[in-house]
Amino acid sequence: MQPGQHMSADIAAQPKIYADLVARQSELAGVAAKIAERRPRFALLAARGSSDHAALYAKYLIEVLLQLPAGLVSPSTTTLYGARPDLTDVLLVSVSQSGGSPDLLEVTESARRQGALTVAVTNTPDSPLNLAAELSVDVGAGPEVAVAATKTYSATLLALYLLIDAVRGGKGEQAAKLGELAQRTLDESQAAVDEAVQRFRFVNRVLTTGRGYSSATAAEAALKLAETSYLSARSYSGADLLHGPVAAVDAETGVLAVTSSGQGGAAMREVLDVVHSRGADVFAVGSAAAKVSAALRIPVAESAEEVAPMLEVLPVQRLALGLSLARGGDPDSPRGLNKVTKTR
Amino acid sequence: MQPGQHMSADIAAQPKIYADLVARQSELAGVAAKIAERRPRFALLAARGSSDHAALYAKYLIEVLLQLPAGLVSPSTTTLYGARPDLTDVLLVSVSQSGGSPDLLEVTESARRQGALTVAVTNTPDSPLNLAAELSVDVGAGPEVAVAATKTYSATLLALYLLIDAVRGGKGEQAAKLGELAQRTLDESQAAVDEAVQRFRFVNRVLTTGRGYSSATAAEAALKLAETSYLSARSYSGADLLHGPVAAVDAETGVLAVTSSGQGGAAMREVLDVVHSRGADVFAVGSAAAKVSAALRIPVAESAEEVAPMLEVLPVQRLALGLSLARGGDPDSPRGLNKVTKTR
Repeated sequence: MQPGQHMSADIAAQPKIYADLVARQSELAGVAAKIAERRPRFALLAARGSSDHAALYAKYLIEVLLQLPAGLVSPSTTTLYGARPDLTDVLLVSVSQSGGSPDLLEVTESARRQGALTVAVTNTPDSPLNLAAELSVDVGAGPEVAVAATKTYSATLLALYLLIDAVRGGKGEQAAKLGELAQRTLDESQAAVDEAVQRFRFVNRVLTTGRGYSSATAAEAALKLAETSYLSARSYSGADLLHGPVAAVDAETGVLAVTSSGQGGAAMREVLDVVHSRGADVFAVGSAAAKVSAALRIPVAESAEEVAPMLEVLPVQRLALGLSLARGGDPDSPRGLNKVTKTR
Repeated sequence: MQPGQHMSADIAAQPKIYADLVARQSELAGVAAKIAERRPRFALLAARGSSDHAALYAKYLIEVLLQLPAGLVSPSTTTLYGARPDLTDVLLVSVSQSGGSPDLLEVTESARRQGALTVAVTNTPDSPLNLAAELSVDVGAGPEVAVAATKTYSATLLALYLLIDAVRGGKGEQAAKLGELAQRTLDESQAAVDEAVQRFRFVNRVLTTGRGYSSATAAEAALKLAETSYLSARSYSGADLLHGPVAAVDAETGVLAVTSSGQGGAAMREVLDVVHSRGADVFAVGSAAAKVSAALRIPVAESAEEVAPMLEVLPVQRLALGLSLARGGDPDSPRGLNKVTKTR
């Protein structure tokens, strides 16, 4: 067994997973119709780890596409402090690839008792979380053997997009060609990813940044680099970066900037001007990467902004895989990690 | 002028600021009564930078003390994507020491037009944000000359605690002695802070962690270390840490763990057992620091858990100041930072 073999296979499987999930759209539309019928007024999202970044993406979708205020749940207010708010008119979406985190289960059970409409989005249709929630969606990524989440993350994003778009009566049309675009992105980005792996072999400090929908990709990139390559990577929204942390950016810093076409990518330009002027090594990923000041650019196929995170993440996963291998690690079994983490 | 002179004076001023703010409680109770009268059903918090950590603290208070669901605003859904949700029954609290961030101003104006009850919490009573919001609270920290926020951060926490407690009819009794407890904490923690400065002089990688109310302190600690000492510091909730990032923790990692008495601190024990077993240098701050496995401990005066963040942050600020000076910097004017950051 080669190190990284599972992660590599999971990454390569994503184009087909996207196409298959788009083909299951009517199934998701059924769940969406039940959500629309209940007319939620406020949305909460509960998740941990990579799924938390999928939840962040969904928060943007819910606020922009559904025009509903939304928030990310802090599970400890339920699990440690026993908060039991009235959740009438609230939609709670619990996101977990395994559906097995005890804290999310407790949050979901409690929210349902408190009147929320609960929806589980998992890769494990018979999980405890699916049983606890009133409605559920199977992201259909298939078994993921590598510990680092890749295809379960991206499939969760797509399931959330299709679900949320369907709640407003959409047909997920921006996602129709995602399978194809994903394959093209994987093919066309590989050379630039290989170059980035060489350049970042000895980096110590990595900062990732993005705005809008792409801030989810930036957050996921930092986590993936930390858990597979043991890099000290952290993520900031482009706006927050300028509020302090930019002081720590210098010529020793590798900055992974997610810049896709659209409003989020456009707003990144002023951020990258500042970062670039501080001598940082900027490495731009996205369909608008060509438009910003950067030392390295990784191309991503063009798409509508709200589905770009499903494409941007592909070369990022390959970068994490490549760096892990170049640094002598095995991303399929990072030290100290288990697939399901049981925290309360 | 000595480097760090302003930051040092700001830190020392906090006990008196706490006492003064507690004495202004009836003024805050007036604002709280207007909030209670409107019976909000959901709360949103808008902030950037250090204030975002104050907002995180307030989110816990709102969920636990007021039993209301709450979320942190992503300003870009308003400023970049033009979301205009119906915000009837929503309380929007905008937190900003300067009251001058254009994005928070736009979020607040938009929320008010969309029906939210808007409250500005600032250190600048005549700021544009105060004018834009229906209600406002002056945190009363006085002018802050140092670029790194210290006393404005802690005063904002206390103002939020007093305000939120008053909404439920409380009299802020857990905060009554905070001035005294803050002075005691500053006095009794100094020797341990000095030792920590020596030990962390050459650290490259710092991770901060906390749970529950104290996760705000962990987030603020990472930001303060990044902006004053240019350290690569990042913060994880204790629960999220075990979901992946723990892989990057090793003997080269300095871990600042916030562990106060109460549920949050108790839940940190399992986290620190794992971190400690990986050989990391754990540095515990808080009133329960003596109860966890750690190489260094910084004592903090005992208090109710919900007000502990106002005490925990004091030695953390002194650590950031001391490390910045030891590394040859000037925390009063970190490279690349301005006091008011104008992002959209």
